Amino acid sequence: PVGAVHIVGAGPGDPELLTLKAFRLIQQADIVFYDKLVSPEILDMVRRDAERVPVGKSKGEHLVPQDGIHELLIAAAREGKRVVRLKGGDPFIFGRGGEEVDALREAGIEADVVPGITSALGCAASARLPLTHRDHAQSVTFVTGHAQKGGVPDLDWPALARPHQTVVVFMGVGTAGIISEKLREAGLPGDTPVAVIENGTRENEKRAFGQIADLSSVIEARGIKGPALLIIGAVASLPREAQTLIIEKALA
Amino acid sequence: PVGAVHIVGAGPGDPELLTLKAFRLIQQADIVFYDKLVSPEILDMVRRDAERVPVGKSKGEHLVPQDGIHELLIAAAREGKRVVRLKGGDPFIFGRGGEEVDALREAGIEADVVPGITSALGCAASARLPLTHRDHAQSVTFVTGHAQKGGVPDLDWPALARPHQTVVVFMGVGTAGIISEKLREAGLPGDTPVAVIENGTRENEKRAFGQIADLSSVIEARGIKGPALLIIGAVASLPREAQTLIIEKALA
Repeated sequence: PVGAVHIVGAGPGDPELLTLKAFRLIQQADIVFYDKLVSPEILDMVRRDAERVPVGKSKGEHLVPQDGIHELLIAAAREGKRVVRLKGGDPFIFGRGGEEVDALREAGIEADVVPGITSALGCAASARLPLTHRDHAQSVTFVTGHAQKGGVPDLDWPALARPHQTVVVFMGVGTAGIISEKLREAGLPGDTPVAVIENGTRENEKRAFGQIADLSSVIEARGIKGPALLIIGAVASLPREAQTLIIEKALA
Repeated sequence: PVGAVHIVGAGPGDPELLTLKAFRLIQQADIVFYDKLVSPEILDMVRRDAERVPVGKSKGEHLVPQDGIHELLIAAAREGKRVVRLKGGDPFIFGRGGEEVDALREAGIEADVVPGITSALGCAASARLPLTHRDHAQSVTFVTGHAQKGGVPDLDWPALARPHQTVVVFMGVGTAGIISEKLREAGLPGDTPVAVIENGTRENEKRAFGQIADLSSVIEARGIKGPALLIIGAVASLPREAQTLIIEKALA
Protein backbone atom coordinates (compact mmCIF):
# COMPACT_ATOMS: atom_id res chain seq x y z
CA PRO A 1 0.00 0.00 0.00
CA VAL A 2 1.13 3.53 -0.75
CA GLY A 3 2.05 5.43 2.41
CA ALA A 4 0.73 8.80 3.39
CA VAL A 5 2.76 11.93 2.78
CA HIS A 6 2.36 14.80 5.22
CA ILE A 7 3.82 18.14 4.20
CA VAL A 8 4.31 19.76 7.57
CA GLY A 9 5.22 23.29 8.63
CA ALA A 10 7.77 23.28 11.44
CA GLY A 11 7.28 26.93 12.36
CA PRO A 12 9.95 29.60 12.84
CA GLY A 13 12.37 27.78 15.11
CA ASP A 14 11.14 27.74 18.72
CA PRO A 15 10.20 24.06 19.19
CA GLU A 16 7.21 25.13 21.31
CA LEU A 17 5.76 26.77 18.20
CA LEU A 18 5.21 23.40 16.56
CA THR A 19 1.52 22.57 16.32
CA LEU A 20 0.17 19.58 18.24
CA LYS A 21 -0.49 17.96 14.85
CA ALA A 22 3.06 18.47 13.60
CA PHE A 23 4.35 17.05 16.87
CA ARG A 24 2.15 13.95 16.53
CA LEU A 25 3.13 13.39 12.89
CA ILE A 26 6.89 13.60 13.47
CA GLN A 27 6.45 11.12 16.30
CA GLN A 28 4.63 8.71 13.99
CA ALA A 29 6.81 9.11 10.91
CA ASP A 30 9.00 6.37 9.46
CA ILE A 31 11.04 8.89 7.48
CA VAL A 32 11.42 12.66 7.69
CA PHE A 33 12.79 14.79 4.84
CA TYR A 34 13.77 18.13 6.33
CA ASP A 35 15.04 21.56 5.32
CA LYS A 36 18.13 23.13 6.83
CA LEU A 37 15.92 25.87 8.26
CA VAL A 38 14.33 23.36 10.65
CA SER A 39 15.98 23.77 14.05
CA PRO A 40 17.98 20.96 15.70
CA GLU A 41 15.67 21.05 18.74
CA ILE A 42 12.76 20.15 16.48
CA LEU A 43 14.67 17.35 14.77
CA ASP A 44 15.32 15.96 18.26
CA MET A 45 11.55 15.58 18.64
CA VAL A 46 11.29 13.21 15.66
CA ARG A 47 10.66 9.54 16.54
CA ARG A 48 14.03 8.13 17.56
CA ASP A 49 14.04 5.24 15.09
CA ALA A 50 12.80 7.29 12.12
CA GLU A 51 15.13 7.99 9.20
CA ARG A 52 16.11 11.66 8.93
CA VAL A 53 17.05 12.93 5.48
CA PRO A 54 18.30 16.50 4.97
CA VAL A 55 17.22 17.79 1.56
CA GLY A 56 17.94 21.52 1.68
CA LYS A 57 17.99 24.39 1.68
CA SER A 58 20.41 26.65 3.46
CA LYS A 59 20.75 30.27 2.30
CA GLY A 60 19.66 29.47 -1.22
CA GLU A 61 21.88 26.41 -1.58
CA HIS A 62 19.98 23.24 -2.32
CA LEU A 63 21.31 19.95 -1.06
CA VAL A 64 18.86 18.21 -3.37
CA PRO A 65 17.15 19.97 -6.30
CA GLN A 66 13.36 20.38 -6.06
CA ASP A 67 12.67 17.58 -8.59
CA GLY A 68 14.92 15.29 -6.61
CA ILE A 69 12.91 16.03 -3.46
CA HIS A 70 9.73 15.06 -5.32
CA GLU A 71 11.30 11.76 -6.38
CA LEU A 72 12.42 10.97 -2.84
CA LEU A 73 8.94 11.67 -1.43
CA ILE A 74 7.22 9.57 -4.08
CA ALA A 75 9.65 6.66 -3.69
CA ALA A 76 9.28 6.61 0.10
CA ALA A 77 5.47 6.73 -0.14
CA ARG A 78 5.47 3.85 -2.63
CA GLU A 79 7.52 1.80 -0.16
CA GLY A 80 4.54 2.17 2.17
CA LYS A 81 6.34 4.43 4.61
CA ARG A 82 4.71 7.12 6.71
CA VAL A 83 6.46 10.12 5.20
CA VAL A 84 6.83 13.58 6.69
CA ARG A 85 8.21 16.45 4.63
CA LEU A 86 9.21 18.95 7.31
CA LYS A 87 9.62 22.52 6.16
CA GLY A 88 10.63 25.69 7.99
CA GLY A 89 7.73 28.09 8.64
CA ASP A 90 4.58 27.30 6.67
CA PRO A 91 4.64 25.04 3.58
CA PHE A 92 2.51 27.44 1.51
CA ILE A 93 4.36 30.71 2.20
CA PHE A 94 7.50 30.74 0.02
CA GLY A 95 7.94 27.07 0.88
CA ARG A 96 7.40 25.46 -2.54
CA GLY A 97 4.80 23.28 -0.85
CA GLY A 98 2.47 23.81 -3.80
CA GLU A 99 4.98 22.21 -6.16
CA GLU A 100 5.35 19.22 -3.84
CA VAL A 101 1.57 18.77 -3.59
CA ASP A 102 1.33 18.90 -7.41
CA ALA A 103 4.16 16.43 -7.97
CA LEU A 104 2.70 13.96 -5.49
CA ARG A 105 -0.78 14.33 -6.97
CA GLU A 106 0.55 13.66 -10.46
CA ALA A 107 2.11 10.49 -9.07
CA GLY A 108 -1.30 9.48 -7.69
CA ILE A 109 -0.42 10.29 -4.08
CA GLU A 110 -2.66 12.66 -2.18
CA ALA A 111 -0.63 14.80 0.20
CA ASP A 112 -1.92 16.16 3.48
CA VAL A 113 -0.72 19.67 4.32
CA VAL A 114 -0.24 20.85 7.90
CA PRO A 115 0.16 24.61 8.28
CA GLY A 116 2.95 26.04 10.38
CA ILE A 117 3.65 29.36 12.05
CA THR A 118 5.25 31.31 9.24
CA SER A 119 8.32 33.25 10.33
CA ALA A 120 6.43 36.50 9.63
CA LEU A 121 4.00 35.68 12.44
CA GLY A 122 6.71 34.25 14.68
CA CYS A 123 8.97 37.29 14.37
CA ALA A 124 6.07 39.73 14.76
CA ALA A 125 4.92 38.08 17.98
CA SER A 126 8.42 37.82 19.34
CA ALA A 127 9.17 41.51 18.69
CA ARG A 128 5.59 42.48 19.59
CA LEU A 129 4.98 44.20 16.25
CA PRO A 130 1.37 43.79 15.15
CA LEU A 131 1.30 43.14 11.40
CA THR A 132 -2.07 44.83 11.08
CA HIS A 133 -3.28 47.69 13.25
CA ARG A 134 -6.46 49.77 13.09
CA ASP A 135 -4.51 53.04 13.09
CA HIS A 136 -1.41 52.06 11.12
CA ALA A 137 -1.85 49.14 8.73
CA GLN A 138 -5.03 47.96 7.03
CA SER A 139 -3.22 45.16 5.20
CA VAL A 140 -0.08 43.07 5.30
CA THR A 141 1.82 41.73 2.29
CA PHE A 142 4.41 38.95 2.27
CA VAL A 143 7.07 38.98 -0.46
CA THR A 144 10.46 37.39 -0.95
CA GLY A 145 13.65 39.38 -1.38
CA HIS A 146 15.30 36.50 -3.17
CA ALA A 147 16.56 37.42 -6.63
CA GLN A 148 17.67 35.20 -9.48
CA LYS A 149 21.44 35.33 -9.92
CA GLY A 150 22.08 38.25 -7.60
CA GLY A 151 19.86 40.66 -9.51
CA VAL A 152 16.84 42.70 -8.51
CA PRO A 153 13.93 40.90 -6.81
CA ASP A 154 10.95 40.63 -9.17
CA LEU A 155 8.51 42.69 -7.06
CA ASP A 156 5.68 45.14 -7.69
CA TRP A 157 7.46 48.14 -6.15
CA PRO A 158 4.66 50.73 -6.64
CA ALA A 159 2.18 48.46 -4.86
CA LEU A 160 4.64 47.86 -1.99
CA ALA A 161 5.32 51.58 -1.61
CA ARG A 162 1.68 52.47 -0.97
CA PRO A 163 0.73 53.77 2.49
CA HIS A 164 -1.21 52.18 5.39
CA GLN A 165 0.19 48.70 4.99
CA THR A 166 2.86 46.45 6.42
CA VAL A 167 5.29 44.75 4.04
CA VAL A 168 7.15 41.68 5.23
CA VAL A 169 10.16 40.64 3.18
CA PHE A 170 11.37 37.07 3.57
CA MET A 171 15.05 36.43 2.82
CA GLY A 172 15.60 40.13 2.28
CA VAL A 173 19.03 40.66 3.82
CA GLY A 174 21.06 39.83 0.70
CA THR A 175 19.14 42.34 -1.41
CA ALA A 176 18.40 44.90 1.33
CA GLY A 177 20.21 47.72 -0.43
CA ILE A 178 18.26 47.23 -3.64
CA ILE A 179 14.97 46.84 -1.76
CA SER A 180 15.55 50.12 0.08
CA GLU A 181 16.40 51.92 -3.17
CA LYS A 182 13.51 50.51 -5.22
CA LEU A 183 10.92 51.22 -2.54
CA ARG A 184 12.06 54.84 -2.21
CA GLU A 185 12.11 55.29 -5.98
CA ALA A 186 8.51 54.05 -5.98
CA GLY A 187 7.55 56.69 -3.45
CA LEU A 188 7.97 55.13 -0.01
CA PRO A 189 9.15 57.87 2.40
CA GLY A 190 12.77 57.35 3.49
CA ASP A 191 11.81 57.64 7.16
CA THR A 192 9.42 54.68 6.98
CA PRO A 193 10.25 52.45 9.98
CA VAL A 194 11.79 49.03 9.41
CA ALA A 195 12.59 46.15 11.73
CA VAL A 196 15.10 43.44 10.84
CA ILE A 197 14.77 40.17 12.73
CA GLU A 198 17.29 37.35 12.47
CA ASN A 199 16.60 33.90 13.93
CA GLY A 200 13.21 35.07 15.19
CA THR A 201 11.80 33.04 18.13
CA ARG A 202 15.15 31.27 18.62
CA GLU A 203 17.50 31.80 21.54
CA ASN A 204 19.92 33.69 19.30
CA GLU A 205 17.27 36.10 17.98
CA LYS A 206 18.66 39.47 16.94
CA ARG A 207 16.61 42.58 16.22
CA ALA A 208 17.54 45.86 14.58
CA PHE A 209 15.33 48.90 14.11
CA GLY A 210 15.74 51.86 11.81
CA GLN A 211 14.40 53.67 8.79
CA ILE A 212 14.12 52.28 5.29
CA ALA A 213 16.65 54.83 3.94
CA ASP A 214 19.31 53.42 6.32
CA LEU A 215 18.40 49.75 5.93
CA SER A 216 21.82 48.52 4.81
CA SER A 217 23.72 50.29 7.56
CA VAL A 218 21.22 49.15 10.20
CA ILE A 219 21.78 45.54 9.12
CA GLU A 220 25.53 45.94 8.98
CA ALA A 221 25.78 47.72 12.34
CA ARG A 222 23.91 44.90 14.05
CA GLY A 223 25.94 42.20 12.29
CA ILE A 224 22.93 40.49 10.72
CA LYS A 225 23.85 38.04 7.97
CA GLY A 226 20.48 36.33 7.41
CA PRO A 227 18.27 34.43 7.08
CA ALA A 228 16.32 37.35 8.42
CA LEU A 229 12.99 39.01 7.95
CA LEU A 230 12.28 42.67 7.17
CA ILE A 231 9.09 44.25 8.57
CA ILE A 232 8.45 47.56 6.83
CA GLY A 233 5.80 50.09 7.86
CA ALA A 234 4.52 52.18 10.74
CA VAL A 235 4.05 49.14 12.99
CA ALA A 236 7.83 48.65 13.06
CA SER A 237 8.23 51.79 15.18
CA LEU A 238 5.66 50.87 17.81
CA PRO A 239 8.03 49.33 20.36
CA ARG A 240 10.29 52.38 20.32
CA GLU A 241 7.32 54.71 20.74
CA ALA A 242 6.18 52.59 23.65
CA GLN A 243 9.63 52.74 25.24
CA THR A 244 9.65 56.51 24.93
CA LEU A 245 6.22 56.63 26.52
CA ILE A 246 7.38 54.51 29.45
CA ILE A 247 10.48 56.67 29.96
CA GLU A 248 8.38 59.84 29.83
CA LYS A 249 5.99 58.40 32.40
CA ALA A 250 8.86 57.41 34.67
CA LEU A 251 10.30 60.95 34.53
CA ALA A 252 6.92 62.69 34.97
CA PRO B 1 2.90 40.61 42.46
CA VAL B 2 1.48 41.43 39.05
CA GLY B 3 0.64 38.30 37.04
CA ALA B 4 1.81 37.58 33.54
CA VAL B 5 -0.48 38.18 30.58
CA HIS B 6 -0.12 35.91 27.57
CA ILE B 7 -1.89 36.98 24.39
CA VAL B 8 -2.25 33.66 22.62
CA GLY B 9 -3.35 32.70 19.11
CA ALA B 10 -5.69 29.71 19.15
CA GLY B 11 -5.41 28.99 15.43
CA PRO B 12 -8.21 28.45 12.93
CA GLY B 13 -10.36 25.93 14.79
CA ASP B 14 -8.88 22.43 14.56
CA PRO B 15 -7.64 21.85 18.15
CA GLU B 16 -4.61 20.00 16.76
CA LEU B 17 -3.48 23.28 15.20
CA LEU B 18 -2.80 24.80 18.60
CA THR B 19 0.90 25.26 19.19
CA LEU B 20 2.59 23.32 21.97
CA LYS B 21 3.14 26.65 23.72
CA ALA B 22 -0.51 27.69 23.51
CA PHE B 23 -1.48 24.26 24.87
CA ARG B 24 0.89 24.63 27.81
CA LEU B 25 -0.26 28.17 28.62
CA ILE B 26 -3.99 27.33 28.64
CA GLN B 27 -3.19 24.41 30.95
CA GLN B 28 -1.35 26.73 33.33
CA ALA B 29 -3.76 29.68 33.24
CA ASP B 30 -5.82 30.84 36.19
CA ILE B 31 -8.17 32.79 33.94
CA VAL B 32 -8.81 32.71 30.19
CA PHE B 33 -10.51 35.55 28.31
CA TYR B 34 -11.64 34.15 24.97
CA ASP B 35 -13.22 35.22 21.70
CA LYS B 36 -16.32 33.57 20.28
CA LEU B 37 -14.22 32.43 17.31
CA VAL B 38 -12.29 30.05 19.57
CA SER B 39 -13.73 26.57 19.09
CA PRO B 40 -15.42 24.64 21.96
CA GLU B 41 -12.92 21.78 21.55
CA ILE B 42 -10.12 24.21 22.36
CA LEU B 43 -11.92 25.66 25.36
CA ASP B 44 -12.24 22.06 26.63
CA MET B 45 -8.43 21.93 26.73
CA VAL B 46 -8.19 24.81 29.22
CA ARG B 47 -7.26 23.80 32.78
CA ARG B 48 -10.45 22.50 34.38
CA ASP B 49 -10.40 24.82 37.38
CA ALA B 50 -9.50 27.97 35.40
CA GLU B 51 -12.07 30.73 35.01
CA ARG B 52 -13.34 31.10 31.43
CA VAL B 53 -14.59 34.52 30.42
CA PRO B 54 -16.13 35.09 26.97
CA VAL B 55 -15.37 38.64 25.82
CA GLY B 56 -16.34 38.65 22.17
CA LYS B 57 -16.61 38.79 19.32
CA SER B 58 -19.08 36.95 17.14
CA LYS B 59 -19.78 38.22 13.63
CA GLY B 60 -18.93 41.79 14.51
CA GLU B 61 -20.91 41.82 17.75
CA HIS B 62 -18.82 42.57 20.80
CA LEU B 63 -19.78 41.05 24.11
CA VAL B 64 -17.35 43.45 25.76
CA PRO B 65 -16.00 46.58 24.04
CA GLN B 66 -12.24 46.63 23.35
CA ASP B 67 -11.54 49.07 26.21
CA GLY B 68 -13.46 46.82 28.55
CA ILE B 69 -11.30 43.86 27.51
CA HIS B 70 -8.19 45.89 28.34
CA GLU B 71 -9.60 46.70 31.80
CA LEU B 72 -10.40 43.06 32.49
CA LEU B 73 -6.89 41.91 31.48
CA ILE B 74 -5.22 44.59 33.60
CA ALA B 75 -7.38 43.90 36.63
CA ALA B 76 -6.76 40.14 36.47
CA ALA B 77 -3.01 40.66 36.10
CA ARG B 78 -2.97 43.02 39.09
CA GLU B 79 -4.71 40.33 41.17
CA GLY B 80 -1.60 38.24 40.47
CA LYS B 81 -3.38 35.76 38.21
CA ARG B 82 -1.82 33.89 35.33
CA VAL B 83 -3.87 35.43 32.52
CA VAL B 84 -4.36 34.08 29.00
CA ARG B 85 -6.09 36.17 26.36
CA LEU B 86 -7.09 33.53 23.80
CA LYS B 87 -7.83 34.81 20.30
CA GLY B 88 -8.94 33.05 17.13
CA GLY B 89 -6.18 32.70 14.51
CA ASP B 90 -3.13 34.88 15.18
CA PRO B 91 -3.23 37.85 17.58
CA PHE B 92 -1.44 40.16 15.16
CA ILE B 93 -3.46 39.50 11.99
CA PHE B 94 -6.72 41.45 12.29
CA GLY B 95 -6.85 40.41 15.92
CA ARG B 96 -6.43 43.77 17.66
CA GLY B 97 -3.59 42.17 19.59
CA GLY B 98 -1.50 45.30 19.05
CA GLU B 99 -4.03 47.40 20.93
CA GLU B 100 -4.03 44.94 23.82
CA VAL B 101 -0.23 44.94 24.00
CA ASP B 102 -0.26 48.76 24.06
CA ALA B 103 -2.95 49.00 26.74
CA LEU B 104 -1.12 46.52 28.98
CA ARG B 105 2.19 48.27 28.45
CA GLU B 106 0.68 51.63 29.39
CA ALA B 107 -0.54 49.97 32.59
CA GLY B 108 3.01 48.80 33.29
CA ILE B 109 2.32 45.16 32.36
CA GLU B 110 4.52 43.53 29.74
CA ALA B 111 2.51 41.12 27.63
CA ASP B 112 3.92 38.01 26.01
CA VAL B 113 2.53 37.24 22.55
CA VAL B 114 2.21 33.69 21.22
CA PRO B 115 1.58 33.47 17.48
CA GLY B 116 -1.17 31.23 16.12
CA ILE B 117 -1.98 29.68 12.77
CA THR B 118 -3.90 32.45 11.09
CA SER B 119 -7.03 31.24 9.31
CA ALA B 120 -5.43 32.21 5.97
CA LEU B 121 -2.76 29.55 6.49
CA GLY B 122 -5.20 27.06 7.99
CA CYS B 123 -7.67 27.35 5.11
CA ALA B 124 -4.94 27.28 2.48
CA ALA B 125 -3.46 24.07 3.88
CA SER B 126 -6.83 22.45 4.29
CA ALA B 127 -7.89 23.22 0.71
CA ARG B 128 -4.34 22.63 -0.57
CA LEU B 129 -4.08 26.08 -2.13
CA PRO B 130 -0.51 27.42 -1.92
CA LEU B 131 -0.66 31.13 -1.07
CA THR B 132 2.55 31.77 -2.97
CA HIS B 133 3.68 29.82 -6.02
CA ARG B 134 6.69 30.30 -8.30
CA ASP B 135 4.52 30.31 -11.42
CA HIS B 136 1.38 32.00 -10.13
CA ALA B 137 1.86 34.29 -7.14
CA GLN B 138 5.00 36.15 -6.09
CA SER B 139 3.28 37.71 -3.09
CA VAL B 140 0.31 37.30 -0.79
CA THR B 141 -1.69 40.09 0.83
CA PHE B 142 -4.08 39.80 3.77
CA VAL B 143 -6.91 42.34 4.05
CA THR B 144 -10.20 42.50 5.91
CA GLY B 145 -13.54 42.82 4.16
CA HIS B 146 -15.11 44.32 7.24
CA ALA B 147 -16.66 47.74 6.57
CA GLN B 148 -17.80 50.40 9.02
CA LYS B 149 -21.61 50.57 9.18
CA GLY B 150 -22.29 48.35 6.17
CA GLY B 151 -20.37 50.53 3.73
CA VAL B 152 -17.43 49.83 1.42
CA PRO B 153 -14.30 48.25 2.95
CA ASP B 154 -11.48 50.81 3.14
CA LEU B 155 -9.06 48.99 0.81
CA ASP B 156 -6.46 49.93 -1.79
CA TRP B 157 -8.34 48.41 -4.74
CA PRO B 158 -5.77 49.23 -7.48
CA ALA B 159 -3.01 47.51 -5.48
CA LEU B 160 -5.21 44.45 -4.85
CA ALA B 161 -6.14 44.21 -8.54
CA ARG B 162 -2.53 43.85 -9.70
CA PRO B 163 -1.45 40.54 -11.25
CA HIS B 164 0.79 37.72 -9.96
CA GLN B 165 -0.37 37.85 -6.36
CA THR B 166 -2.78 36.14 -4.01
CA VAL B 167 -5.24 38.27 -2.04
CA VAL B 168 -6.80 36.79 1.08
CA VAL B 169 -9.85 38.58 2.43
CA PHE B 170 -10.79 37.93 6.05
CA MET B 171 -14.46 38.39 6.97
CA GLY B 172 -15.30 39.06 3.34
CA VAL B 173 -18.65 37.32 2.97
CA GLY B 174 -20.82 40.23 4.10
CA THR B 175 -19.22 42.59 1.59
CA ALA B 176 -18.49 40.02 -1.16
CA GLY B 177 -20.62 41.80 -3.76
CA ILE B 178 -18.86 45.12 -3.23
CA ILE B 179 -15.43 43.46 -3.16
CA SER B 180 -16.10 41.73 -6.49
CA GLU B 181 -17.31 44.99 -8.05
CA LYS B 182 -14.47 47.17 -6.74
CA LEU B 183 -11.75 44.72 -7.77
CA ARG B 184 -13.12 44.48 -11.31
CA GLU B 185 -13.47 48.26 -11.56
CA ALA B 186 -9.80 48.45 -10.58
CA GLY B 187 -8.86 46.12 -13.40
CA LEU B 188 -8.94 42.59 -11.99
CA PRO B 189 -10.14 40.24 -14.77
CA GLY B 190 -13.63 38.87 -14.06
CA ASP B 191 -12.45 35.30 -14.60
CA THR B 192 -9.87 35.50 -11.80
CA PRO B 193 -10.33 32.36 -9.68
CA VAL B 194 -11.65 32.65 -6.15
CA ALA B 195 -12.10 30.15 -3.34
CA VAL B 196 -14.46 30.73 -0.41
CA ILE B 197 -13.77 28.71 2.73
CA GLU B 198 -16.10 28.67 5.72
CA ASN B 199 -15.07 27.11 9.04
CA GLY B 200 -11.70 26.15 7.57
CA THR B 201 -9.96 23.22 9.36
CA ARG B 202 -13.13 22.41 11.33
CA GLU B 203 -15.33 19.37 10.80
CA ASN B 204 -18.01 21.52 9.21
CA GLU B 205 -15.62 23.14 6.69
CA LYS B 206 -17.33 24.23 3.47
CA ARG B 207 -15.55 25.24 0.27
CA ALA B 208 -16.82 26.94 -2.85
CA PHE B 209 -14.86 27.70 -6.01
CA GLY B 210 -15.63 30.10 -8.81
CA GLN B 211 -14.63 33.30 -10.55
CA ILE B 212 -14.49 36.76 -9.01
CA ALA B 213 -17.28 38.02 -11.30
CA ASP B 214 -19.66 35.40 -9.85
CA LEU B 215 -18.53 35.69 -6.22
CA SER B 216 -21.92 36.51 -4.71
CA SER B 217 -23.76 33.72 -6.49
CA VAL B 218 -21.01 31.19 -5.66
CA ILE B 219 -21.38 32.08 -1.97
CA GLU B 220 -25.17 31.96 -2.11
CA ALA B 221 -25.31 28.69 -4.03
CA ARG B 222 -23.14 26.98 -1.44
CA GLY B 223 -25.08 28.48 1.49
CA ILE B 224 -22.07 30.17 3.06
CA LYS B 225 -22.99 32.74 5.69
CA GLY B 226 -19.55 33.46 7.21
CA PRO B 227 -17.22 33.82 8.97
CA ALA B 228 -15.41 32.76 5.85
CA LEU B 229 -12.25 33.55 3.99
CA LEU B 230 -11.84 34.55 0.33
CA ILE B 231 -8.69 33.46 -1.52
CA ILE B 232 -8.40 35.39 -4.77
CA GLY B 233 -5.87 34.67 -7.52
CA ALA B 234 -4.56 31.98 -9.83
CA VAL B 235 -3.72 29.62 -6.96
CA ALA B 236 -7.44 29.28 -6.21
CA SER B 237 -7.94 27.30 -9.42
CA LEU B 238 -5.17 24.79 -8.76
CA PRO B 239 -7.30 22.06 -7.21
CA ARG B 240 -9.74 22.12 -10.10
CA GLU B 241 -6.93 21.97 -12.62
CA ALA B 242 -5.50 19.05 -10.71
CA GLN B 243 -8.86 17.31 -10.69
CA THR B 244 -9.13 17.77 -14.43
CA LEU B 245 -5.63 16.36 -14.81
CA ILE B 246 -6.53 13.32 -12.74
CA ILE B 247 -9.75 12.77 -14.73
CA GLU B 248 -7.86 13.14 -18.01
CA LYS B 249 -5.25 10.63 -16.85
CA ALA B 250 -7.96 8.20 -15.76
CA LEU B 251 -9.64 8.43 -19.17
CA ALA B 252 -6.39 8.26 -21.15
